[in-house]
Amino acid sequence: MGSLNIYVLGSAAGGGVPQWNCRCPVCSLYWAGDHRVQARSQSSIAVSADNERWLLINASPDLRQQILTSQVLQPREGARHSPIKAVILTNADVDHIAGLLVLRERQAFTVYATGQNQAILAENSVFNVLASEVVKRSTINMDEFFDTDIGLKVRPFSVPGKVALFMERGEDTKIGDVTETTIGLEITSGGKRLVYIPGCAEINETVRSIASGADLLLYDGTTYTDDEMPKLGLSQKTARRMGHTPITGPGGSLRAFDELSIGQKAYIHINNTNPILIDGSDEHQTVIAAGWTVTRDGTMFSL
Amino acid sequence: MGSLNIYVLGSAAGGGVPQWNCRCPVCSLYWAGDHRVQARSQSSIAVSADNERWLLINASPDLRQQILTSQVLQPREGARHSPIKAVILTNADVDHIAGLLVLRERQAFTVYATGQNQAILAENSVFNVLASEVVKRSTINMDEFFDTDIGLKVRPFSVPGKVALFMERGEDTKIGDVTETTIGLEITSGGKRLVYIPGCAEINETVRSIASGADLLLYDGTTYTDDEMPKLGLSQKTARRMGHTPITGPGGSLRAFDELSIGQKAYIHINNTNPILIDGSDEHQTVIAAGWTVTRDGTMFSL
Repeated sequence: MGSLNIYVLGSAAGGGVPQWNCRCPVCSLYWAGDHRVQARSQSSIAVSADNERWLLINASPDLRQQILTSQVLQPREGARHSPIKAVILTNADVDHIAGLLVLRERQAFTVYATGQNQAILAENSVFNVLASEVVKRSTINMDEFFDTDIGLKVRPFSVPGKVALFMERGEDTKIGDVTETTIGLEITSGGKRLVYIPGCAEINETVRSIASGADLLLYDGTTYTDDEMPKLGLSQKTARRMGHTPITGPGGSLRAFDELSIGQKAYIHINNTNPILIDGSDEHQTVIAAGWTVTRDGTMFSL
Repeated sequence: MGSLNIYVLGSAAGGGVPQWNCRCPVCSLYWAGDHRVQARSQSSIAVSADNERWLLINASPDLRQQILTSQVLQPREGARHSPIKAVILTNADVDHIAGLLVLRERQAFTVYATGQNQAILAENSVFNVLASEVVKRSTINMDEFFDTDIGLKVRPFSVPGKVALFMERGEDTKIGDVTETTIGLEITSGGKRLVYIPGCAEINETVRSIASGADLLLYDGTTYTDDEMPKLGLSQKTARRMGHTPITGPGGSLRAFDELSIGQKAYIHINNTNPILIDGSDEHQTVIAAGWTVTRDGTMFSL
């Protein structure tokens, strides 16, 4: 056990792997029972300083299943209990907020989010299943460290992004704006530092300077190429249009952090179309050779 | 394969079994690895006349996992496909609507619900992930058969119930009102008839007359006794306060249908506190002896 413990609950982007209605090459291998493709649930990590009290970064729609397969997150005492003490949202996309609906049943915890994302929760009455008497909603400020009361300090920072899909207004959707819509997180404990950026439309100087010196960088691995979805005929949207930097090509993440001193680099929030999900594929080998880990559900990091 | 095929995707009430934060006697057995308690996901059934095109009754938060374990619901052709052609909601509780968020990714299907429950979906912008160009929302009328276009005819009827938990306004909450908040469904195909009532606050004459002569009645098995939750110290709410008839005691469901001619009777929407979930328990044996099936995830009925 380290000073900063990270448990990958889900490593996939929205929809998971396989996606319920998809027969792209990766999903088709899964449906056919090919063991090179592992099932992956939607992205979320649990972080703890003491392995007893956990902070979730994002609450995925798969959260109930993720808890069932993660003994550290299961209740240990009394009639009702949970080691989950808080959730921080990095944006308001369905794959990051729907799991809040799993955390009903009058269990006390805190939901941290930016003002903009708290407003989205407030506007959607369905989230009132989290009884306001027991679940605290706390608005976080950019660029300031705050204390989670469980031994973890957290600093949110804005990254280039876009609003949640369900809040998009067609062609008016702005991509790459630096607002409080999409954030990254710096989390520290016992001198160790995690930088978590599951969605980022551009690797700018802020992202680079915060990533520099991190013991672990968990970064947006949505697609391998910018035109991955259009090429497969699945969507007209490029990675950038969805608010993500591709792994390869101009502005890609693969080599973007090479000049910086970073302990470990790992991809998370990996879309079902991404060929790095096929173990042993050329693309999988390329990212490994470039020094990246491809996270799986259940991957642990002890810093 | 019969004329009317029913596949139980989830047999538990809201929260599932085990519930994420619960150590009631049933959940504790599960956490301890006792094989008398099986994991159960939140209630939903899939219905089909042809075993190819399926209608979901309610969309549970566990729907992604339910599809992964149900081959008949997986995509079979083209790049994107789903055998799920429609979803009908019987109320707007989180355990019945959150799964709509799983069905994103621009797949065409129809969401049938009462006007009151459609309004709740419309008020919650998060459900806009179901793109309006491809997902049709259709308002259903009480007591009229409608055709789902996949060989199933459906007639919704009001049952005594209450508004969804997240819409409750404290002590003003009315229990047992017969409105369009909570409905049951009569589904027919090839001369066979299913009656589906996962939540019902009172077995009145309407419920009795519609259940009469059904080939299969799937009925609200939330709790065994009315005071089950208060007795365990988990909640102050009785079954009735939650909008459910208990299995036993005054007004209970166990013997309420004895005088009627019904092909098969089975309990669904079973709460994690209900001792019938412990295989071989006295309560489990009592309901079996009274002619009821206790559904499990994966139970199939072919009528």
